[in-house]
Amino acid sequence: MSAPTLDEIRTRDAADPLNGFRDRFVIPDGLVYLDGNSLGCLPKATPDRIADVVAREWGEDLIRSWNTNDWINAPRRVGAKIAGLIGANDDEVVIADSTSINVFKVLSACLQLDPKRSVLLSERGNFPTDVYMMQGLSALSGGRVATRLVEPDDVIAALDSDAAALLLTQVHYKTGRMRDMAAVTKAAHDKGVPVIWDLSHSAGAVPVDLNASNADFAVGCGYKYLNGGPGAPAFLFAAKRHHEAVFPALSGWLGHEAPFDFDDTYRPAPGIDRFQCGTPGILAISALEVGVDLIAEAGMEALREKSRALSDLFLDLMAERCSEYGFEPACPADSAERGSQASFHHENGYAIMQAIIARGVIGDFRAPDILRFGFAPLYNRFEDVWQAVETIRTVMAEEAWRDPQFQSRRAVT
Amino acid sequence: MSAPTLDEIRTRDAADPLNGFRDRFVIPDGLVYLDGNSLGCLPKATPDRIADVVAREWGEDLIRSWNTNDWINAPRRVGAKIAGLIGANDDEVVIADSTSINVFKVLSACLQLDPKRSVLLSERGNFPTDVYMMQGLSALSGGRVATRLVEPDDVIAALDSDAAALLLTQVHYKTGRMRDMAAVTKAAHDKGVPVIWDLSHSAGAVPVDLNASNADFAVGCGYKYLNGGPGAPAFLFAAKRHHEAVFPALSGWLGHEAPFDFDDTYRPAPGIDRFQCGTPGILAISALEVGVDLIAEAGMEALREKSRALSDLFLDLMAERCSEYGFEPACPADSAERGSQASFHHENGYAIMQAIIARGVIGDFRAPDILRFGFAPLYNRFEDVWQAVETIRTVMAEEAWRDPQFQSRRAVT
Repeated sequence: MSAPTLDEIRTRDAADPLNGFRDRFVIPDGLVYLDGNSLGCLPKATPDRIADVVAREWGEDLIRSWNTNDWINAPRRVGAKIAGLIGANDDEVVIADSTSINVFKVLSACLQLDPKRSVLLSERGNFPTDVYMMQGLSALSGGRVATRLVEPDDVIAALDSDAAALLLTQVHYKTGRMRDMAAVTKAAHDKGVPVIWDLSHSAGAVPVDLNASNADFAVGCGYKYLNGGPGAPAFLFAAKRHHEAVFPALSGWLGHEAPFDFDDTYRPAPGIDRFQCGTPGILAISALEVGVDLIAEAGMEALREKSRALSDLFLDLMAERCSEYGFEPACPADSAERGSQASFHHENGYAIMQAIIARGVIGDFRAPDILRFGFAPLYNRFEDVWQAVETIRTVMAEEAWRDPQFQSRRAVT
Repeated sequence: MSAPTLDEIRTRDAADPLNGFRDRFVIPDGLVYLDGNSLGCLPKATPDRIADVVAREWGEDLIRSWNTNDWINAPRRVGAKIAGLIGANDDEVVIADSTSINVFKVLSACLQLDPKRSVLLSERGNFPTDVYMMQGLSALSGGRVATRLVEPDDVIAALDSDAAALLLTQVHYKTGRMRDMAAVTKAAHDKGVPVIWDLSHSAGAVPVDLNASNADFAVGCGYKYLNGGPGAPAFLFAAKRHHEAVFPALSGWLGHEAPFDFDDTYRPAPGIDRFQCGTPGILAISALEVGVDLIAEAGMEALREKSRALSDLFLDLMAERCSEYGFEPACPADSAERGSQASFHHENGYAIMQAIIARGVIGDFRAPDILRFGFAPLYNRFEDVWQAVETIRTVMAEEAWRDPQFQSRRAVT
């Protein structure tokens, strides 16, 4: 079966039940943006929301806003909204800090659940910050805590009585490979190992059901599919059954039972609040809330259906129109096993990506050789996919990527 | 000598060389805001700056902004500006995370400098998050690291060969007592103990010279005197001589030597960059930069001179006009030993503070019995001080604080 024509693709866009959402985002003229898995687009409602938080809540109400504008509950309020996207209860998710910091919190929490276990387990090639935080925690422990990285397919076999935590990203940032959360969690629990799911490429991209999977902890990012803005704060999930067992390693004042007692002794707040640490960044949480609301309004099932169709179309068109240019799929062929992205190996991947970016199609490059394209079904159209593949085809046919301007590495790739 | 009259005070405001700065802040009508040490006022330039970051940098330039709008260097760029306020070199300060998280980073760094030392030392009544982070780190260590709190005047005597770090807030959040940074640091170094200075109530409030004091590490807050907005990111100072010795415990990907190599092994970035962790919050850093620029433009010496005059006037007027109402100064009488604040004990402090807030004078209450007033010389006038004391006087004379509405505690005090 051949891939659809551009006319057929435009018909699909016209019939897309989510097509009204695109107009609720700022999409720069002429841009095909397939990098929402790195930084999501700006919702049109966000500038007004931030302006109001700045001018009225900060400027006029000042310190009183902690009470009158409920700033103090913002981390829980937005956390509860994210809970609804990832199969968690409202009182199991909180907004706090960065994904990296939250990884440290839940790794150190796992070490408390069974003090006889001291190995932090993950896969090679996991998103670096996850394994780096393991390594920092290990170094801090002075050798008491070890880290172990195994090949992705060997993770289950590596579960043993020393493992204190299994830390995995559900949707791999390069390959888009999606783990079976329920099956992996069960296999880990069978060996007594709690599981931490990094949902950075899942939240807002694929339906997640943490509690149906009996997950222990999770973390995730606010600035990708949740459209929370550059460096948006992250979220943390802890299953209710673990809350009271954890004495937070990052025991900041806003995780205290009574922060305004200004007591000299840390006593963890009840429940999920103990995973807060310092004073929350209100501007950033307010921006994140707008993005989360849009995802919730669209609904994860509808988003997933369109997401699968977008990435399927991309792979079909690449196979049909770019087969002679040496792109090797890096993602699973079956969309059921794939997150909301597609990726390809190519030895000239860096220069090719720069060349297509110069022509208005934005994906990103991930060392050593991966071209990565994210699909944000809230604002990406099927026609975007067509244009992206057509741009790749012409860049390859014209060998435009050979231009010297596309060879030199920028600070951020 | 009696305190000046209102006419004399207005003459002082008219002659104040900093009086032009007040108009560069949003000051709500009729409000006397003496809580800039909790949340600084909104600079008038901030809304436009944030709107531009949101609409243009995020909305239009999207992911490209990490390079084209130099987002990747924002933590260093704003850190360097703060360095100029605190006697540090440009490459010794970085914006990252919260004050609490940064306390954890530098405490764990100190533990690496001399592994034979394992006691984290601070004073009782230090700002809670500082001692809480000590306690969390100790709990995480499984007993290897201990914490010790002593009375404020016993800190020097408590320095011993077990002490791995002395963590002190330079200007105490309740009393405003200002530590002699150079003398304390020297005393600690004489015992081989590195010193961490919490500058949350110093940065932008009093001149600080970290390197002249030979300080080891420092942290501080962006949302108080630096006017960075609610929950603004914090800063971290590490003396250059310590950079290469520290393997960060919070070893996130943006503290890596080559984050975009996506390598499986953490290698600390050279210099201060290793104290970054996750992806920086660009909206919040951009807001912070506006506030820092204003402080830098005014200059710390001029700010300090006015700050001392403001707090002296407040104490003089309180002594003259409110002597019969039972307020007991909680701050040093000599402004040379005081930060940019004044505070009083009063057994009915909570209700009194609520009553004066209801009349448009905002300070804050700090348990168990402290009324606290901060002076932000960029925007506070001498007349504000007059009005504040006059409001306190009438609230006491009329016993307005007895109203039941002022007795019930709010979530945030």
